[in-house]
Amino acid sequence: MKSWIQLSSRGVIFSFLLFGALGLTQIKHQDNDVAYLAIANQITAKALSENEGYRMLAELTQKVGARLSGSPEAAAAVEWGRQTMQRCGLKNVRLQEVTVPHWVRGAVEEARVINSPTVGSVPLSVCALGGSIGTPDFGVLGEVVEVHNFEEVQALASRAKGKILFYNRPMDPTLLNTFAAYSGAVDQRSTGAIEAAKVGAVAVLVRSMTTALDDVPHTGAMHYEEGVPEIPAAAISTLDADFLSGLLQKDQKVRVQLRLSCETLPDVPSANVMGEIRGSEIPDEIIVLGGHLDSWDKGQGAHDDGTGCVQALEALRLLKTLDVTPKRTIRAVLFMNEENGQRGAQVYAENAEAGHIAAIESDRGGFAPTGFTVNASQEVVNEIARWAYLFEPMDAARIQAGYGGVDINPLTTKFGTATLGLLVESQRYFDYHHSDNDTFDKVNERELELGAAAIAIMAYVLANEGI
Amino acid sequence: MKSWIQLSSRGVIFSFLLFGALGLTQIKHQDNDVAYLAIANQITAKALSENEGYRMLAELTQKVGARLSGSPEAAAAVEWGRQTMQRCGLKNVRLQEVTVPHWVRGAVEEARVINSPTVGSVPLSVCALGGSIGTPDFGVLGEVVEVHNFEEVQALASRAKGKILFYNRPMDPTLLNTFAAYSGAVDQRSTGAIEAAKVGAVAVLVRSMTTALDDVPHTGAMHYEEGVPEIPAAAISTLDADFLSGLLQKDQKVRVQLRLSCETLPDVPSANVMGEIRGSEIPDEIIVLGGHLDSWDKGQGAHDDGTGCVQALEALRLLKTLDVTPKRTIRAVLFMNEENGQRGAQVYAENAEAGHIAAIESDRGGFAPTGFTVNASQEVVNEIARWAYLFEPMDAARIQAGYGGVDINPLTTKFGTATLGLLVESQRYFDYHHSDNDTFDKVNERELELGAAAIAIMAYVLANEGI
Repeated sequence: MKSWIQLSSRGVIFSFLLFGALGLTQIKHQDNDVAYLAIANQITAKALSENEGYRMLAELTQKVGARLSGSPEAAAAVEWGRQTMQRCGLKNVRLQEVTVPHWVRGAVEEARVINSPTVGSVPLSVCALGGSIGTPDFGVLGEVVEVHNFEEVQALASRAKGKILFYNRPMDPTLLNTFAAYSGAVDQRSTGAIEAAKVGAVAVLVRSMTTALDDVPHTGAMHYEEGVPEIPAAAISTLDADFLSGLLQKDQKVRVQLRLSCETLPDVPSANVMGEIRGSEIPDEIIVLGGHLDSWDKGQGAHDDGTGCVQALEALRLLKTLDVTPKRTIRAVLFMNEENGQRGAQVYAENAEAGHIAAIESDRGGFAPTGFTVNASQEVVNEIARWAYLFEPMDAARIQAGYGGVDINPLTTKFGTATLGLLVESQRYFDYHHSDNDTFDKVNERELELGAAAIAIMAYVLANEGI
Repeated sequence: MKSWIQLSSRGVIFSFLLFGALGLTQIKHQDNDVAYLAIANQITAKALSENEGYRMLAELTQKVGARLSGSPEAAAAVEWGRQTMQRCGLKNVRLQEVTVPHWVRGAVEEARVINSPTVGSVPLSVCALGGSIGTPDFGVLGEVVEVHNFEEVQALASRAKGKILFYNRPMDPTLLNTFAAYSGAVDQRSTGAIEAAKVGAVAVLVRSMTTALDDVPHTGAMHYEEGVPEIPAAAISTLDADFLSGLLQKDQKVRVQLRLSCETLPDVPSANVMGEIRGSEIPDEIIVLGGHLDSWDKGQGAHDDGTGCVQALEALRLLKTLDVTPKRTIRAVLFMNEENGQRGAQVYAENAEAGHIAAIESDRGGFAPTGFTVNASQEVVNEIARWAYLFEPMDAARIQAGYGGVDINPLTTKFGTATLGLLVESQRYFDYHHSDNDTFDKVNERELELGAAAIAIMAYVLANEGI
């Protein structure tokens, strides 16, 4: 492409027409609207020209790195968060103690096909699922049975005894929203070990939660159930899942040895990190900007959820350096332990003061923003959708009912807080999610900064106008 | 992110409301609309589950590789295109001869700061601009003068004599549309050597056309002017542009030696590649789907424009395998020589038969589609925008007036053909464009296939309904 395109920037006029025509709300305070649009454009321009959020992300992902709850790296991330908030000039920077689970992967995680007539003994690309028990040192050895859902598992009944169940139902690639495809497959990972143990299986292998076909296993949380035996659980890469499935067709009987040294250690003290810009007029009303500071121990926790953390920080930095003081308080909260416990979210909500009118979380990856999902009454959704015109210039004006975020959801339960989730272009997220692929180089500077700007704009307007 | 979002898929209802409310057009043929939506969803699901376009791109980028006009690789690409069209079962597969320029980079391209008091002699990351003459074997040695626009060049007057002019005006990072930022800076690359030579400069270095800060130079077309001396022109990476600018502040006087072995050889015979699905009712009316088969000689020509080529092919393959025969003819054209001559576009238009009612080009990278720009009367734009609801499920319903594409534009000139450009998420394009970064691994399978599906859907509906 050597030439350029001519885009008429009719977005603003378009949204005025749209919201007028749909009768969602009337445009009031015309002068205010123009002023907000000017501030929104300043915020965006500053984000895109300074790229400070991107620099923060480089620090968090490349200096601190992966930071699973309870790890030394998670402690480093807490201190990084505290110092970064101070460097941004936030007020009331503080830690909030959170006791977190401490699961460790350990040095050994391997699986191997044993004595296949077709391929002999070959290794498989696997990793322990988060929360899994380990195996004995010599491993678990069993015949593999491929299954695709819990009905198949129950139908196996006693034939599952002593077997390794291999969950191989892919994320549905035809679903346009990759999060819907994820939610349609993730039961295999989260509770597959429980269902397998109920029928006597000795371990599970779970096809990685990604639509990409590659050799990288994707970890993630799994659970046990009181009264059901605990068995080891590992993710297998999509390429090796296809390989194993093909081998089962050829060999009929395939045996796999699985060795995992993961274990759960005693709980560890950790913390949420908080800092804020105090509201000039109604400081006791609060808008929370959140991301989660912990990550899995694979890759660098870049898109999940380093980007969400730095967007919350960058949003406040942008408002601070532009010197546009909001009427209500805007608080950044870096939540600890989203991935395997959500203890930070619980502690924050339990201790939260009244006045939490809204919270915004970014935890869908640092991709180009497309809008916000809003978890609130339709009336409040419509009220917030009135600000869509501020996001038209960056093509992020889709404001619709939907989930807000795991870390801020307890605020909705406790206070009825309106919780908003940053909506982003979703096609790439699960290529990286919970795997060695989730590294800094997969994040685009401008997409990250546009998300930060979108959050800053939404926070500012909600802080000034209330809900 | 461990949980999921709940998105209500109200897109279709939304667009009905929208177009009803805006009064752009009335919804007619309600049954037809439902049928089209069903076909559109089939096309998209097939694209996302088969990923054949992605496999084609792997071949073109990894087996053929970069394919500058006149190169053996460009010849390989022509034969690859012909065979791929036949494999897809297209009719009337043929080559259309195009004589193309043959510029070669040669083995030597280097630049080096000479005897700086601050840093000594250090290399700079540069590459020749396409079309540049080479330097003598021992290079061109000159004092560097930094400039930012042609006014500054003219103001230098005789002080430019014997100097190397260093164009260092960045793409404006605050512009949300990166193509607008590109068009605001690219005059330095395309005609900077002409303006510099007019005031006696001996060479130019041009800051690479990207908003990314990295060590990779980006090439691209440059031109000379009859009667103005031809001087060598090279791109310098953005990191080294910043370094050189900083060094000029410190040292005051910086000398650089530039060596380039590029040259222009005699023209070479090459070809456009064409194949089609014949219309069942009005075969003499034609919708062209185009991309350009040539690329620069850096990277693998993945986003520019391997993705556009395979999207045209994949769109026809999808229609073919779904066995939905269009009423009018849909023709894929892989244009040769977009990057440095547009000779393929000229030859195609010169020989084109009447009946070209529309043409669609994808040449903005293989990113998530967001809609189409349409180069036609506002009446035709509105007529095409009536189909927006078909693209709502994939978030690509933005249909607006704008440029169609370099290769199809001559059809507008000749016939008044409505030309459409696939609009995509634009933030990442110039990170890769014309550089070693433009490789297969930068393309996301699902984003590429969504673009192919969007083109297939638009082609099908235009082929059935006409304009």
